Amino acid sequence: MKKKKIVIIGGSAAGPKAAARARRLDQNAEILIIQKDSDLSMASCGYPYYVGGVFDNRDQLLSTPTGVIRNPKFFLNAKGITAFNNTEAVEIDRKNKVIKTNNIKTNEKKDIDYDKLILCTGSNPKLPPIPGIDLEGITTLQSIKDADYLRKIRDEKKIKKAVVIGGGLIGIETGEALNLAGIDLTVIEMQDQILPFLDKQLAKIIENHIKSKGANVITGNGINSFLGKDGKLTGIKLKNGTELDCELAVVAIGVKPNTDLALKAGLEIGEYKGITVNSNMQTSDPDIYAAGDCIETVNAITGDKAYMPMGDLANLQGRVAGENVVLGNNTVFGGTYKTGICKVFDFNAGSTGINITDAEQYGFKPVTTVTAGPDKPGFMGSRILINKIIADEKTGRLIGFQCVGSGDVSKQIAQAAIAIQGKLTVDDLSNSDLPYAPPFTLAIDNFIAANHVLQNKIAGRMSGISCRQVKEKVDNNENILILDTRGSDEYEIMRLGIGETLMPLGSLRDRINELPDDKNTEIVCYCKISLRGYEAARIIEANGYTNVKVMEGGIMAWPYPREK
Amino acid sequence: MKKKKIVIIGGSAAGPKAAARARRLDQNAEILIIQKDSDLSMASCGYPYYVGGVFDNRDQLLSTPTGVIRNPKFFLNAKGITAFNNTEAVEIDRKNKVIKTNNIKTNEKKDIDYDKLILCTGSNPKLPPIPGIDLEGITTLQSIKDADYLRKIRDEKKIKKAVVIGGGLIGIETGEALNLAGIDLTVIEMQDQILPFLDKQLAKIIENHIKSKGANVITGNGINSFLGKDGKLTGIKLKNGTELDCELAVVAIGVKPNTDLALKAGLEIGEYKGITVNSNMQTSDPDIYAAGDCIETVNAITGDKAYMPMGDLANLQGRVAGENVVLGNNTVFGGTYKTGICKVFDFNAGSTGINITDAEQYGFKPVTTVTAGPDKPGFMGSRILINKIIADEKTGRLIGFQCVGSGDVSKQIAQAAIAIQGKLTVDDLSNSDLPYAPPFTLAIDNFIAANHVLQNKIAGRMSGISCRQVKEKVDNNENILILDTRGSDEYEIMRLGIGETLMPLGSLRDRINELPDDKNTEIVCYCKISLRGYEAARIIEANGYTNVKVMEGGIMAWPYPREK
Repeated sequence: MKKKKIVIIGGSAAGPKAAARARRLDQNAEILIIQKDSDLSMASCGYPYYVGGVFDNRDQLLSTPTGVIRNPKFFLNAKGITAFNNTEAVEIDRKNKVIKTNNIKTNEKKDIDYDKLILCTGSNPKLPPIPGIDLEGITTLQSIKDADYLRKIRDEKKIKKAVVIGGGLIGIETGEALNLAGIDLTVIEMQDQILPFLDKQLAKIIENHIKSKGANVITGNGINSFLGKDGKLTGIKLKNGTELDCELAVVAIGVKPNTDLALKAGLEIGEYKGITVNSNMQTSDPDIYAAGDCIETVNAITGDKAYMPMGDLANLQGRVAGENVVLGNNTVFGGTYKTGICKVFDFNAGSTGINITDAEQYGFKPVTTVTAGPDKPGFMGSRILINKIIADEKTGRLIGFQCVGSGDVSKQIAQAAIAIQGKLTVDDLSNSDLPYAPPFTLAIDNFIAANHVLQNKIAGRMSGISCRQVKEKVDNNENILILDTRGSDEYEIMRLGIGETLMPLGSLRDRINELPDDKNTEIVCYCKISLRGYEAARIIEANGYTNVKVMEGGIMAWPYPREK
Repeated sequence: MKKKKIVIIGGSAAGPKAAARARRLDQNAEILIIQKDSDLSMASCGYPYYVGGVFDNRDQLLSTPTGVIRNPKFFLNAKGITAFNNTEAVEIDRKNKVIKTNNIKTNEKKDIDYDKLILCTGSNPKLPPIPGIDLEGITTLQSIKDADYLRKIRDEKKIKKAVVIGGGLIGIETGEALNLAGIDLTVIEMQDQILPFLDKQLAKIIENHIKSKGANVITGNGINSFLGKDGKLTGIKLKNGTELDCELAVVAIGVKPNTDLALKAGLEIGEYKGITVNSNMQTSDPDIYAAGDCIETVNAITGDKAYMPMGDLANLQGRVAGENVVLGNNTVFGGTYKTGICKVFDFNAGSTGINITDAEQYGFKPVTTVTAGPDKPGFMGSRILINKIIADEKTGRLIGFQCVGSGDVSKQIAQAAIAIQGKLTVDDLSNSDLPYAPPFTLAIDNFIAANHVLQNKIAGRMSGISCRQVKEKVDNNENILILDTRGSDEYEIMRLGIGETLMPLGSLRDRINELPDDKNTEIVCYCKISLRGYEAARIIEANGYTNVKVMEGGIMAWPYPREK
């Protein structure tokens, strides 16, 4: 029997995974990786931590857990996979099933034939087409070359001021690395919030945290041009005319699928400009599969196409492609739940599922709440978690979840991601049996607590109002009564100062007569996390008031300046 | 309208939660808690950490997150709930709906009537009926009085030797506390493993870790009698005759539901001796509900009854009971997935779902594997996780999961608990979209990786063998070829020394001719975590060998002594 020849173009994440999976399923196949870079299997998600000095040995980005560099020799010996590095795939001749390649170092040209081809050509960073983009001192953090460049800047300690353009995941991670290197940092984001996968209020909390570390964050303002002298970056000019001095600019405004080869070969490209694949990771050519940052995947909740260039998905998709080229279309990748997380100094921020805007667009009836609380009992050294939960009121199903805070955000998001995948409802999750012991969590885990609050809202037992809505009402001088239901000792230490009345929960029952005569007065209750605020609202409602709201998440979720 | 009168007997976990829930849903009801202790809402799961000196302020066990002691005054002012502490419920007159009570301090007797009653009478520690049980120096860690006693021992530093009887969750947590206090500790467990919710092999790994901290662990040996002098404990005698000196013995052999009141009142009691309730938490008397450690709940996977005295479930059940006494049987508690976790020095150990024995008994066809690996990329400072995963081969559904290691066990178990609740299959979970970034996890999270391996096993691509089975074969001098497929450098640093042959994966393809001529030879492959072991097995099988196995979890999961 003729050996099957499987060729993979791209050697970063999806490619090596697909190759390894194919090998494990077929010991006889000839398996080749064509890789433009000299490196293979780079841990590219680790670049910001290398730049930031979390570790110093660059080889760790290129090694197996036991310290073996994943070079062509390793691939050949350990995996029986031939890897041509420094080799560019120039063109795919689909008719003859041949790939024209060119060795970048030697300029040697070679035609490589294939039975099955997997495209893992990744993505390219977006660059704004604005004046000065070619100045020295402007970079991205996409390649290991970029990481080397930025790490050198860190180690040389010559650069004083830097900007990061783009307040998304990579921008924020890179910004942290530069700040930790002692560089005066400004993050610039065109949208009116950083980390667009988060709700505005939660994003604001992260923004506050970044600022507390001495970095500057500018939102709602794009970049107009880069300023330079003698070919070197000296500053930037923002759309509103502001100029900022800087010697370094990292552009992190996102990536776009690298589809040059696929386009030239006439493969179908989708609405997000990624290669179109079915759930088997098969392109419009049955002998060509694709995986990773170069493809469009499916939003598993809405069924719509989505572009989600994430390292974990690239690996999972690569595994599916690698299996299917060997076994036929044996397995599927079910799509993305848009799960993501990042560390931001001492805080973490994550998200899974869909947001309210998307939910409404796709015919869900979203209902949502924000909750806040410690992640453990205080005596175990608790940290804060602020959760935002989104369910579909029609089915009760959880459809979205976000979390920020210094606590264990990763577990909160992971729980929610699996819950969304399992189509669990708010009622189901109100009784989840999660691992509890004081070193790890509260007796009622924050995720369950968020479901409890949402359950109350869905049942009409609680009318919520967001911190942002309260702020707007205050700014507009609306006639509302705001009650802080904490103790006076707490009030002395920390308070909002937005015209609130201190009315400790413990005295509320005796002081009901102090409330306005008009039972339709809008009353907003809160406390530190709005549990006492909720209890206060229940008491006030029981006294005939018809417009009582709980400020969701309480002071812990308040992202604006406080009096104290 | 007459106010509804809701009485709750028991003021620890389920009771206060039920009372608070009832209050939030009915501001007009009269709500009473009858509590035998002087304290209320004690964070009893925190006792081992108070004893161990993780924190010093005992009030933290009794306070709200903002530092208010949860005493009767707090319950009255903040919750509008009357709490009679130091008050014993002596008898329930169901016909007249009256509870006879007795104040332990004043001896005052009072009859309290109720419309709805919730029993949250908790559990009592089991005590072995053996000679010497009344000696001074023998305690449990069930009450805050016990915690005070043990904390005093810690602070006084007089006691040198202690035993903990019972290697379950509480026993191990308490043992750690005593060890941290500098006390020479022996844990004694009658079964042949500690932490019975774990698979033997995983339990052995935890046992090794405890021993590495200088504590002694004796399994498969019960206690025959306590030895004493002048009324004080001086030692214990084990069933095998061994005597151990000790001045302190903590008995932690489990708890039994406290059902004295329920029994006397003629309420139905179940096979596990807990109060029988339906999913609404309603007892055999429609006006009496029950929640927490005093009830039997349902195993949500098997549908069978289960006794699961855990603080988190008590809270969830209390919430359900509190809602239903107000709104009628409006909501249900769906049962337990038997989820649990504990910290053991620098390791954590957790479990959810059912084990293989139970799975077989309930008609599942269990298929299982053990996997090991770092929890993060090495450059982020990874720690180890060893997972055991159990699925039902008929449906592909995940039905059980265990995890031990120094890494983030809590997240692994939480993910699995939600996955089991969501009835997700190994195929589903092989493509889960979990939150990935290097500070938190691997690109393919350990939980997903465990599902991948099990997927391979189910598809017949991998034949696994446990470390225990390999050990038995070695001990029995069976004719097997054991291949360590790591590099020679790794072999020099650490190796099993069970007669294995070093055959690095990278050289295997060239050395196939060194394998025995008999293609039916039993060959066992492994490496550090058995990923390379798996790849080696695939290569060997492709060369016609028919009996090739992968030692699951590799060296990291090997719980027996190593040569190096």
